[in-house]
Amino acid sequence: MVTTLQPPIEIPREWYSIVPDLPGKLPPVIDPVTRKIADKALLHRLFIDELARHEYSNERFIPIPQEVREAYSIWRPTPLVRAKRLEKALSTPARIYYKNETVSPSGSHKANAAVAQAYFAAKQGIKRLVTSTTAGQWGTALAFGCSIFGVGCTIFMSRSSYDGKPYRKDLAEMWGAELLPSPSTRTAVGRKILEEDPHGPGTMSIAKSEALEEARGDINARNSVGSIMNFVLASQTVVGQEAIAQMAAVDDYPDVLIGCVGGGSNFSGLFWPFYRDAVAKKGPKEIELIGAESTAAPRMTMGEYIYDHADAMRTSPLFKMYTVGHRFVPPVVHSGGLRVHGSAPTLSLLLHEGKIKPVAFNQLEAFEAGSMFAAVEGILPAPETAFAIKATIDEAKRCKETGEKKTILFNLCGHGLLDIEAYREYRSGKMSPGDADPAAIRKSLAEVKSLYPWLDQSS
Amino acid sequence: MVTTLQPPIEIPREWYSIVPDLPGKLPPVIDPVTRKIADKALLHRLFIDELARHEYSNERFIPIPQEVREAYSIWRPTPLVRAKRLEKALSTPARIYYKNETVSPSGSHKANAAVAQAYFAAKQGIKRLVTSTTAGQWGTALAFGCSIFGVGCTIFMSRSSYDGKPYRKDLAEMWGAELLPSPSTRTAVGRKILEEDPHGPGTMSIAKSEALEEARGDINARNSVGSIMNFVLASQTVVGQEAIAQMAAVDDYPDVLIGCVGGGSNFSGLFWPFYRDAVAKKGPKEIELIGAESTAAPRMTMGEYIYDHADAMRTSPLFKMYTVGHRFVPPVVHSGGLRVHGSAPTLSLLLHEGKIKPVAFNQLEAFEAGSMFAAVEGILPAPETAFAIKATIDEAKRCKETGEKKTILFNLCGHGLLDIEAYREYRSGKMSPGDADPAAIRKSLAEVKSLYPWLDQSS
Repeated sequence: MVTTLQPPIEIPREWYSIVPDLPGKLPPVIDPVTRKIADKALLHRLFIDELARHEYSNERFIPIPQEVREAYSIWRPTPLVRAKRLEKALSTPARIYYKNETVSPSGSHKANAAVAQAYFAAKQGIKRLVTSTTAGQWGTALAFGCSIFGVGCTIFMSRSSYDGKPYRKDLAEMWGAELLPSPSTRTAVGRKILEEDPHGPGTMSIAKSEALEEARGDINARNSVGSIMNFVLASQTVVGQEAIAQMAAVDDYPDVLIGCVGGGSNFSGLFWPFYRDAVAKKGPKEIELIGAESTAAPRMTMGEYIYDHADAMRTSPLFKMYTVGHRFVPPVVHSGGLRVHGSAPTLSLLLHEGKIKPVAFNQLEAFEAGSMFAAVEGILPAPETAFAIKATIDEAKRCKETGEKKTILFNLCGHGLLDIEAYREYRSGKMSPGDADPAAIRKSLAEVKSLYPWLDQSS
Repeated sequence: MVTTLQPPIEIPREWYSIVPDLPGKLPPVIDPVTRKIADKALLHRLFIDELARHEYSNERFIPIPQEVREAYSIWRPTPLVRAKRLEKALSTPARIYYKNETVSPSGSHKANAAVAQAYFAAKQGIKRLVTSTTAGQWGTALAFGCSIFGVGCTIFMSRSSYDGKPYRKDLAEMWGAELLPSPSTRTAVGRKILEEDPHGPGTMSIAKSEALEEARGDINARNSVGSIMNFVLASQTVVGQEAIAQMAAVDDYPDVLIGCVGGGSNFSGLFWPFYRDAVAKKGPKEIELIGAESTAAPRMTMGEYIYDHADAMRTSPLFKMYTVGHRFVPPVVHSGGLRVHGSAPTLSLLLHEGKIKPVAFNQLEAFEAGSMFAAVEGILPAPETAFAIKATIDEAKRCKETGEKKTILFNLCGHGLLDIEAYREYRSGKMSPGDADPAAIRKSLAEVKSLYPWLDQSS
């Protein structure tokens, strides 16, 4: 076995979109007002043109502008690392690799999408991007991206995270952005929700509604999202493309790919290029895909594959996706990035077709895995990332039982240097598992399904 | 001009020591008890054998063990980045590059030395490394390194930093280390100082004394240091070696190298390999070296080149270096890594020979530069690193005045994600400049010079 000492690879020149290679046609996005397929104009009203265009395009490869590649070069290519000490600690015959996305200036893979969107916004003459964030990884990443290309940035962050992670605000501000707690008094949506519940923790879905309203009110602004949409996920494929080149250089290839899944951007960024390899018959073997979610918002394991809004106030069009319902309020947990009600339509389709194996963990299981990883591998993972590590450890333990020498590759999508308070809570023994209430999920799903009787909601 | 998109380079295979290439013989280390040149046994009692051996060796190149290169591969090679947006913001004809050492798991260049020492400790069967840290960059880096190689770690951290940076403790502990505020009740030295001043902020020199005492009391432990010593600085030369290869790939070569200077490890890691190029007549031109220090501990600009202890309690032998005196207590500032009384003997000799230009800034100037860098280049620098950025900005402005198209390369040696409180203080307008009192420095130096009348203290 050749050891991996960062074989020389290039920063990718194209993003890859899985859409044309999916096992079936992606169900169309529906406009609940017209009851028809959402027209392109809607996308262009909401998003920067390039993002909207990519969304309905059926292109496989999208050239990465040189300016974006230059921004990537601040931290890319990222290292592919063999986790030998973790293997040893688990006495597993499996080979474990991770893609180290923690090295970005904002500390996670989110920066890959952020610089792309900020670049296209600047190119279009858009003055401000408005977005929502839960744990803050996306919000700070977009603030970083906007600082690079001189674009304004407004971020709505769920109040539970905003209060628990004050440093995110400083960081966003130092990058020239404004960061507001959601629900906020800035928007009609926020004011209405505050009236009903002045102390609510907020959710990603509420923050999304506020961002949509704020962007609509400013002709020079556009909405920006850090996951779910095809183009966002495509802009993460620099991760998987680099990993393919790096694994080839050490003469290895994964049997299993693992990522944590909220909307699905980091996992998709890792697995899409490998999936393309398989479709194009270039990959040497079939790869198992394992997506790890939080039991606080168990879309993939307890949700349904139906049409749902992306936001709480039903402002967005309808996407067919695995969802626990847009009004479901997940327990407040420390992995805000996974505290979302729906996963990406592309990922949901693959899940529905049996191409992805979903697993769910509570936050205690994840923090245990994350702490172990920090102690043996030396990198403190973000709470979200710890879910992928938990899935990796489980898979490596299975290999120990069966004796299989599988090659496992997971996406170490973010570091936890801004989440030390959460680890402190875990270490104090006072952290709760944070499981969602199954009855609340059932109720939430029933509401979604009864909302538009004209829609076929059989999953 | 070719743009730099991370041309493929290798992780270096050797560390380089400047000692044989210095413009004069390095003054010997003196044992104040015997009044003679400190014998090798003293070094071996204090430090791990490999570190001691390298210290008195006259070898130019030291092979980097494969295990250490593998540990480096977690984050190395680090990117060399052209700071185009900073150039534009300054309207300078200069080309500005930085070496992005912020990508390490502990967030700074210190990890380069830490994994080396932890590896050699493990190889020698040493169970625990004991060290001191001020801002915490070195302490957390050593905790990281020790986690990688399964070595215990005890860290004494100046109380001013310990109180101001509580996350450092969590981080060190999650990496399996113990971190104690200094002065502490753990050591006789600490207890004595606490008796005299129960609320003193501590200094690097006191923390050093405690670490020395703690290590002496445990046969299975050794002292570990993050700067000053030849081998520590040599183990940082991966930075400069990578930079040479990366600059060659974009067909450029620096006119000016800039680094912040406390002990001198990050700056030496950057400039030593370029200095070697010049000595070996391989470098295409003469390079100017600019070291930036803090006015809180202005060794290079207000200190003297004399023999002094490395620690407050006079436990260490005597090193000839630029110093403000080992009993001098610098104002409490947010750049603890520069809050040290003496700089490395190698760096001091070069300074004395006129090979390095020293500049000093107060912390307001540094934080202004650091904030600007974050806003235009997207990386929040550590407070220490901000001093190098300030020097870089000044140099780029000089180029604007003179029209010189200099190539400037500085070491972006650490990120500020764990220093956000400090930036918050700066942004609040409540930060003081933190200048040292010149009279206190004169008094401190007079004390050092009168301490050992048998020593020639003419500088």
